[in-house]
Amino acid sequence: MLHPENDSQYAGLTVNAGVEGQPIVNPYFRPAMRKPRENADYYIAGILRGDKPILAKAVTLVESNLVSDQQIAQKVIEGCLPYSGKSIRVGVTGVPGAGKSTFIEALGNDLCKKGRKLAVLAIDPSSERSRGSILGDKTRMQELSANKDAFIRPSPSAGSLGGVARKTRETIVLCEAAGYDTILVETVGVGQSETAAHSMVDFFLLLQVTGTGDELQGIKRGIMEMADGIAINKCDGNNVEKASVAKTQFQNALALFPPTESGWKPYVTTCSAVENTGIEETWKMVEDYIAFAKQNHFFDINRTRQSKYWMHETITQYLLDSFYHNPVLTDEIEKAEQRILDNKESSFIAAHKLIQLYADNQHK
Amino acid sequence: MLHPENDSQYAGLTVNAGVEGQPIVNPYFRPAMRKPRENADYYIAGILRGDKPILAKAVTLVESNLVSDQQIAQKVIEGCLPYSGKSIRVGVTGVPGAGKSTFIEALGNDLCKKGRKLAVLAIDPSSERSRGSILGDKTRMQELSANKDAFIRPSPSAGSLGGVARKTRETIVLCEAAGYDTILVETVGVGQSETAAHSMVDFFLLLQVTGTGDELQGIKRGIMEMADGIAINKCDGNNVEKASVAKTQFQNALALFPPTESGWKPYVTTCSAVENTGIEETWKMVEDYIAFAKQNHFFDINRTRQSKYWMHETITQYLLDSFYHNPVLTDEIEKAEQRILDNKESSFIAAHKLIQLYADNQHK
Repeated sequence: MLHPENDSQYAGLTVNAGVEGQPIVNPYFRPAMRKPRENADYYIAGILRGDKPILAKAVTLVESNLVSDQQIAQKVIEGCLPYSGKSIRVGVTGVPGAGKSTFIEALGNDLCKKGRKLAVLAIDPSSERSRGSILGDKTRMQELSANKDAFIRPSPSAGSLGGVARKTRETIVLCEAAGYDTILVETVGVGQSETAAHSMVDFFLLLQVTGTGDELQGIKRGIMEMADGIAINKCDGNNVEKASVAKTQFQNALALFPPTESGWKPYVTTCSAVENTGIEETWKMVEDYIAFAKQNHFFDINRTRQSKYWMHETITQYLLDSFYHNPVLTDEIEKAEQRILDNKESSFIAAHKLIQLYADNQHK
Repeated sequence: MLHPENDSQYAGLTVNAGVEGQPIVNPYFRPAMRKPRENADYYIAGILRGDKPILAKAVTLVESNLVSDQQIAQKVIEGCLPYSGKSIRVGVTGVPGAGKSTFIEALGNDLCKKGRKLAVLAIDPSSERSRGSILGDKTRMQELSANKDAFIRPSPSAGSLGGVARKTRETIVLCEAAGYDTILVETVGVGQSETAAHSMVDFFLLLQVTGTGDELQGIKRGIMEMADGIAINKCDGNNVEKASVAKTQFQNALALFPPTESGWKPYVTTCSAVENTGIEETWKMVEDYIAFAKQNHFFDINRTRQSKYWMHETITQYLLDSFYHNPVLTDEIEKAEQRILDNKESSFIAAHKLIQLYADNQHK
């Protein structure tokens, strides 16, 4: 039987369903057409007074691929921009099974109790909301998603990494303007989403679990050296001793890494999201880092660099899209790859032929 | 006093000076104009019969930015392509001070004695040959550079990383066609050259030295996780014990890393290039890896992927160059960055404005 929560058209909204509107009673119901959008000022005003349902709708606009939606979305972002930038942005990564959702739930409830306002976003280009992607399953963060001071939003739906990440980056602006002072960006630790997340956060936390090494299977190489800190989760029950050994091991490994650009020395905490231990210590690491990085000005340097990065990244994505989505080229690119595989043509000559074809078709 | 070896115009050739021709007697001599080039067939035939001076001249064509030179160079590469691909390609990285040159000298002499033919190339976009860049100082590899079975070539001179790396990648094709069955690609461990080298080699070796961690200062984070193996150099004299401790430490750190895509477990050797110990063991690691990767087919999968990568990388570089070198945009890009810094415009809107300007000027 069809059910709204298994339907990708709705699933994106169900995480904030409590504030989004009435549940849909008839599971067979499909809206015949999109509701007309409000104008940009409506969203900006709503966001600035912290109206969560309006924020959610504005994020939907940001995520939309419709040109008309994007036009409003860009105005909304522009209007929110002067009010953004004042949050702490933290990336949280770890493979499925590292307990990211329970960790974020525990951390989030903790932060809200302390008076912080928390937005939890995600980057997972492989996600299809209907299939229980990260943050897509609201049962995982039941308490937090009902918290008035928390805004939880699953990853923008499947698309190119560049597109998905850009939307998350833009959503940060809206959340900050709506008064969220803490932004968590979750990724699954298995691909390039981490690089994207890393370039929009102040602190990058790697969630690990103990074990024989099998748990590391999923995580991509290079991510460990990206981390500003590691938290070993599931340090509970029979796992406590193993977790403490792992902490020492990771701490030793980190000591062999070259220093971070900020001058910060990443370290390792242990925690248990289910027993709610070590969560505060882990957050203290984030706060210590922020204080450290603000003092030596790396915080601002990094943010400035990130802003420039996103401009250049957007340009690069546009240039690549206009090349690779050029209908004249699609078949030719495949043929070129085949000639390379057959050792009939060098990678460079194949590239130049495609570039020539592209240039010829642009001027027509 | 001027001297050819301190002159960037000649220094690029001095490494192979022994085979390149007569030494220049008059240090004030400057050629008034370039010698006319031969046609592509001349170079191809010379390369295929292993003529080192002709190979060196062909590499000069590959490195040249003159359109007329590039036209010949691309034909030469195309002609050599069917005879390429049969070597072992190894990347060697490590910060200045890790002893890369002495290591390569020791390893290279060893390999040549065993009947291998060795080409040593480099990627260092920051290099200016006149200022003693990697491989630029022939005194460092005196014995090897005089060896008839070795071909040593410094990094193509300063330019964009993409351009420098592409030239090195193309030079590999020529060297392989000339019968060199072992290619070493040296980088300095401090930048993106490692990513470029990594995408053109079969095995990536990180050369480390022992110490308090200060030695790691220069190496960029992320490179350690790229390595298929680590060799701790300068394991001699008072350093032997420290090197053996470091070996264990790095071995433990590697064990915490997620497995490599090939399934290979990187490990650590110790060696002394000056005492010529451990060099064979280090090379055995490379050979073991090659056997392992060929058996599970990762070797071929990786090479295929690398070839495709270079096609797409060349396309990307072209697209970026045509954007960023567009004279209409240069000033505007700077202004856009400033608006972003002043928080007056989002990265995305700034990007879109530049893209619009670019599109308008393309169609004119």
